[in-house]
Amino acid sequence: MPLHVVNTEPGALISMDEFRAVLRQVGEERYHHRHPFHLLMHDGELSRGQLQAWALNRYCYQSVIPIKDAIILSKSDDPEFRRAWRKRIVDHDGDSRSKDGGIKRWLKLAEATGLDAERIASKSEVLPATRYAVNEYLNLVRTRPLTEAVASSLTELFSRDLITLRINRLRQHYAWLAAGLDYFEARLEQAPEDAAFAIRYVYENAKTREEQERAIQALRDKCDILWAQLDALYFAYIQPGWPPPGAFRIEN
Amino acid sequence: MPLHVVNTEPGALISMDEFRAVLRQVGEERYHHRHPFHLLMHDGELSRGQLQAWALNRYCYQSVIPIKDAIILSKSDDPEFRRAWRKRIVDHDGDSRSKDGGIKRWLKLAEATGLDAERIASKSEVLPATRYAVNEYLNLVRTRPLTEAVASSLTELFSRDLITLRINRLRQHYAWLAAGLDYFEARLEQAPEDAAFAIRYVYENAKTREEQERAIQALRDKCDILWAQLDALYFAYIQPGWPPPGAFRIEN
Repeated sequence: MPLHVVNTEPGALISMDEFRAVLRQVGEERYHHRHPFHLLMHDGELSRGQLQAWALNRYCYQSVIPIKDAIILSKSDDPEFRRAWRKRIVDHDGDSRSKDGGIKRWLKLAEATGLDAERIASKSEVLPATRYAVNEYLNLVRTRPLTEAVASSLTELFSRDLITLRINRLRQHYAWLAAGLDYFEARLEQAPEDAAFAIRYVYENAKTREEQERAIQALRDKCDILWAQLDALYFAYIQPGWPPPGAFRIEN
Repeated sequence: MPLHVVNTEPGALISMDEFRAVLRQVGEERYHHRHPFHLLMHDGELSRGQLQAWALNRYCYQSVIPIKDAIILSKSDDPEFRRAWRKRIVDHDGDSRSKDGGIKRWLKLAEATGLDAERIASKSEVLPATRYAVNEYLNLVRTRPLTEAVASSLTELFSRDLITLRINRLRQHYAWLAAGLDYFEARLEQAPEDAAFAIRYVYENAKTREEQERAIQALRDKCDILWAQLDALYFAYIQPGWPPPGAFRIEN
């Protein structure tokens, strides 16, 4: 897929402004704010059961974020980078006193849909396709260079707008879910901080045009991972709805 | 999920007959012969474009089979096992003279749908969800013990019936595809031979009830991997059809 950049000379580095613009364009095209499952959610068209399926499956994704971040951390030999990146693990796992990180907050959200915390945490009813997409994220950060692994986190450039909209719409359409929104409130601050660090890091460390393009590709690939999770939810749980054998079924 | 076996004493080994029966039951419940995408295919309800999408995506799966088998081969320290398993790599990759293995035959099938071989072989338009499911198969054989990796191949116990039906139905409903069916003809003989070896190996090497149950679980997991590929095809290409950004689109 061609980049829409000003400098089209072969091999020329693109500027920080262009780099940012290209990443935004990837988000416009591929970030999951455009996915029909989210559109239904934000229009208030989802049932409680469908929101349960979403929260239960997305827990599978949330639960491996610190593992993903530890893999990224393990690839760096720079203590400064590692200190900065460690914040993400703390954000999700919490500390030993409060234990109140993103994973626990997501569990709270899922419980607000009316599901039991143990049932969600067991991940036994997760769609296989969710699991595969989540594992693909781990494959990606494990097998690619550090700069690309960091670039895959840049969906955080787009998450603030989506989360702002989502908090409003969830409050508006699903008032019974309001007690579960701490996860998103916290992400409103965390995600932009994280994205600012990551985009600077990627721009400084992608030293050739090829490396820049591979970083952009890593963001595309990450968008696909998020998108595929919603495809699977849509196919399984939006009418007629065809969950695979063994997966969570909505109670009637 | 409980096993339906005669001997319910905790920890008791199940017999070869029971083992075979439980595997058959897993197939009855989870093998992709029941998937709605295949039902449409066998009823002659798919368009040429939908068969193209199927062939193009399934090529992604076919193309990693020898890699999967090489990983399994690499886990064994028994030359006899390795000699037997090597056959599978030859079956798919062919030999240096003919090069005419399963991968080439699949490409021939895909070409018979009207797609260009290079376009298919590039895998650039494959659904991300197909890729993730395929990578999950590699994750599975890489990270689990040899016996479980071998057990995951036992979908071959069920493939002969499905392929027999499919050859008949493809000939009946999509006569223009007839020149591309060599892949399936070859599998009619290969798959049962391979399955007979694998089930014997798994039964002999799963030495505790827990190992037997884990082998059965590996077959379940493999069924899920096949099923998820058809879910993704169905969601993307059966009406209304919602292929994700960048994936193959059917021409109208």
